[in-house]
Amino acid sequence: MSFLQEVVDILLAYIVESFDRETKVIDFHYPNELMQRNNWELQDEPESLDDILVSCRATLKYAIKTAHPRYFNQLSTGLDMVGLAADWLTSTANTNMFTYEVAPVFVLLEYVTLKKMREIIGWQDGSGDGIFSPGGAISNMYAMLLARFKMFPEVKEKGMSSVPRLAAFTSEHSHFSIKKGAAALGIGTESVICVKGFVPFFVSATAGTTVYGAFDPLIAVSDICKKYNVWFHVDGAWGGSLLMSRRHRWKLDGVDRANSVTWNPHKMMSVPLQCSALLVREEGLMQNCNQMHACYLFQQDKHYDLSYDTGDKALQCGRHVDIFKLWLMWRAKAPASVDIDCVCLCLCSQPQHTNVCFWYLPPGMRHIVDKEEKNKRLHKVAPVIKARMMEYGTTMVSYQPQGDKVNFFRMVISNPAATFEDIDFLIEEIERLGHDL
Amino acid sequence: MSFLQEVVDILLAYIVESFDRETKVIDFHYPNELMQRNNWELQDEPESLDDILVSCRATLKYAIKTAHPRYFNQLSTGLDMVGLAADWLTSTANTNMFTYEVAPVFVLLEYVTLKKMREIIGWQDGSGDGIFSPGGAISNMYAMLLARFKMFPEVKEKGMSSVPRLAAFTSEHSHFSIKKGAAALGIGTESVICVKGFVPFFVSATAGTTVYGAFDPLIAVSDICKKYNVWFHVDGAWGGSLLMSRRHRWKLDGVDRANSVTWNPHKMMSVPLQCSALLVREEGLMQNCNQMHACYLFQQDKHYDLSYDTGDKALQCGRHVDIFKLWLMWRAKAPASVDIDCVCLCLCSQPQHTNVCFWYLPPGMRHIVDKEEKNKRLHKVAPVIKARMMEYGTTMVSYQPQGDKVNFFRMVISNPAATFEDIDFLIEEIERLGHDL
Ligand SMILES: Cc1ncc(COP(=O)(O)O)c(C=O)c1O
Ligand SMILES: Cc1ncc(COP(=O)(O)O)c(C=O)c1O
Repeated sequence: MSFLQEVVDILLAYIVESFDRETKVIDFHYPNELMQRNNWELQDEPESLDDILVSCRATLKYAIKTAHPRYFNQLSTGLDMVGLAADWLTSTANTNMFTYEVAPVFVLLEYVTLKKMREIIGWQDGSGDGIFSPGGAISNMYAMLLARFKMFPEVKEKGMSSVPRLAAFTSEHSHFSIKKGAAALGIGTESVICVKGFVPFFVSATAGTTVYGAFDPLIAVSDICKKYNVWFHVDGAWGGSLLMSRRHRWKLDGVDRANSVTWNPHKMMSVPLQCSALLVREEGLMQNCNQMHACYLFQQDKHYDLSYDTGDKALQCGRHVDIFKLWLMWRAKAPASVDIDCVCLCLCSQPQHTNVCFWYLPPGMRHIVDKEEKNKRLHKVAPVIKARMMEYGTTMVSYQPQGDKVNFFRMVISNPAATFEDIDFLIEEIERLGHDL
Repeated sequence: MSFLQEVVDILLAYIVESFDRETKVIDFHYPNELMQRNNWELQDEPESLDDILVSCRATLKYAIKTAHPRYFNQLSTGLDMVGLAADWLTSTANTNMFTYEVAPVFVLLEYVTLKKMREIIGWQDGSGDGIFSPGGAISNMYAMLLARFKMFPEVKEKGMSSVPRLAAFTSEHSHFSIKKGAAALGIGTESVICVKGFVPFFVSATAGTTVYGAFDPLIAVSDICKKYNVWFHVDGAWGGSLLMSRRHRWKLDGVDRANSVTWNPHKMMSVPLQCSALLVREEGLMQNCNQMHACYLFQQDKHYDLSYDTGDKALQCGRHVDIFKLWLMWRAKAPASVDIDCVCLCLCSQPQHTNVCFWYLPPGMRHIVDKEEKNKRLHKVAPVIKARMMEYGTTMVSYQPQGDKVNFFRMVISNPAATFEDIDFLIEEIERLGHDL
């Protein structure tokens, strides 16, 4: 117990430090360098608890401070104290979501929360189904799996040889998990987007794309899906949380027409990782699609209402308790929303979400007339600035190319601790680190 | 901060209580009853931090005490203080495993630990590959996915229509996740076990079956796989941890011949949930099989060694940090092993692992001669005793039928806090609760 308290003291100090703008976001070292900075090896002799505390401190020393107000690198940022407390409680309760019997409260809270999310989506009385999965990629895969099962239930027993070649449609800017799902499910990545002669079974519209934060027109897409009787999935992993915002909800107009929705509270809502939900309009389908009736878990002669043994809906057997963080944060905040807008620099796309995508054009390149030459040089700017930024460790932001656009920065605001000053700081830092390029 | 400390105080008290044999394992209520015992609803008004503390207490009050020495219900039991501390640290660091850039230390620790696990399996110099996944079911699915890709790499782009019908082989007592995997991957559950005319591509041998804890003969199975050039997977989700035991390691003789091994430290090794590894003998295959080259994460022009960006090996995008718990516990304990043996009651199978499977025959049934009549009545004994047990909440054990065997109890010892007295207590409790049946 005193050991645990000592760890807590270390963690509390780390949290205070993480929110302090004077500390670095990262104390960066290259992999082989980091390997040598500490003894990370697994030995045959046990360590004392004091040594264990030393390991904890070393781990935190080189960790990225994802709660830092100047960390803009990923969609998941920030650290909420209620969420953190809930995660600590979850670890302490250390149980498994597969049956009511071993997780009565958490199963109920999942029930309550999924229902509320479905109400917010706009499904009649919050009816339908759903599950928390280990992340948006898996939630999207579930959606595809359900769509296929809905159209061809025999695929469960007979495999893909029993069905025609299928096609899934999604936009170029959709998340790569749609393709990963298609590959895993035996559909094949070539079937994603559009192939003639294949039977369309699944459309995934993105509500908040990963890079630009753009929203597909859900109503228009849903009309087409309805016409061709195709499963309509909304990947709201990133943008789904705007359903909680009075001001921004309209961007998801039409979401209530979806057959399934992915919504990741671990991104925009700052719930600690992992926390992703798949919501499904049709009740019973998940169970039919995934159940295998393992009789050592889902005994039919149990003494309580078996519909609370939700485990057979999942692809997983053991399933981590991801619900409590979200539930407790929701209780503490109620439908709070993130109402930030901002514009800056040389935008590559009109922001629809809190993604702000931009190039930094160093002074020396501003007068290059030849477009190709300019793009060629501009493409190299972001990686160099990012590398320097990580060396200094003062802030972090991500970059990527997209389509015909050369490397640009993607700043994401999902950290409630970030202020306008922090955004200005990022811009100044980019200028400072890149003006000589 | 003081809020976090208050939560910690609640958690520390809960832990002390959990290890106390005087407390109940569970304060059981039926779902609708539990729903009414507290206000679990999500409201529109935020709650105060004091109310949040009340919610935390209520949640723990009705939680199952999985650390309790008399909790024998699942394969994952017990609570290790170092593992718990590591999980709290992980929550606080709140980052994502997809790239080195956002999780440098954790990526290194995963590297170090997976290598060590491969050495223990017996692969040359610990070479090969691997990943931590959200559980054994997903690890098994990865194995099947890799096996298919290895034999038919075109399946990734072209789907199952490009390959012959496949067959996967596994024993009747194997875990249901093998079938779930086959269904999800478009192979179909009918292809699991044996169908004539199908091309065998995958054999899963179980090292420690879920119910009996039995070990398939790995050497014999590997010989067959070698002969027919079929992927040899060992599902050691439950039994894999015996590789750490000098006394029991022989049960997995031949594991070094496997192409892939599932090994769940969150079961036998008492690492807090979730912690499951898939180890793969061939390097590079996971990357080839699963990569989609998302350029917003896996930029090729980064300034560090890109082999540390392990994210594209996974089906997941965001991936929870599951490594630190295992790594820290390993450091604290070094290769400790669980060397328990025990026999009792009317065994349904010879124990090979810490699963002890038995019937309790109430006195009133002992003299029934008609076998069918006896079995019919015996089948109803375990569910009634289990229901009574949960009402009393004094201990918990699981039951199931299997094949032609009627409902029997499966006691599992994976909780380091359990003593011989606790096992005796369970037996006495079963006697007390069932002698009138
Ligand atoms: C033999 C075996 N394999 C796989 C699994 C699935 O593991 P998990 O619950 O981590 O998904 C289990 C779980 O009991 C198991 O016993
Ligand atoms: C639009 C979209 N969908 C799905 C995902 C995958 O979510 P996860 O990382 O939780 O798997 C992401 C992640 O960035 C995303 O942006």
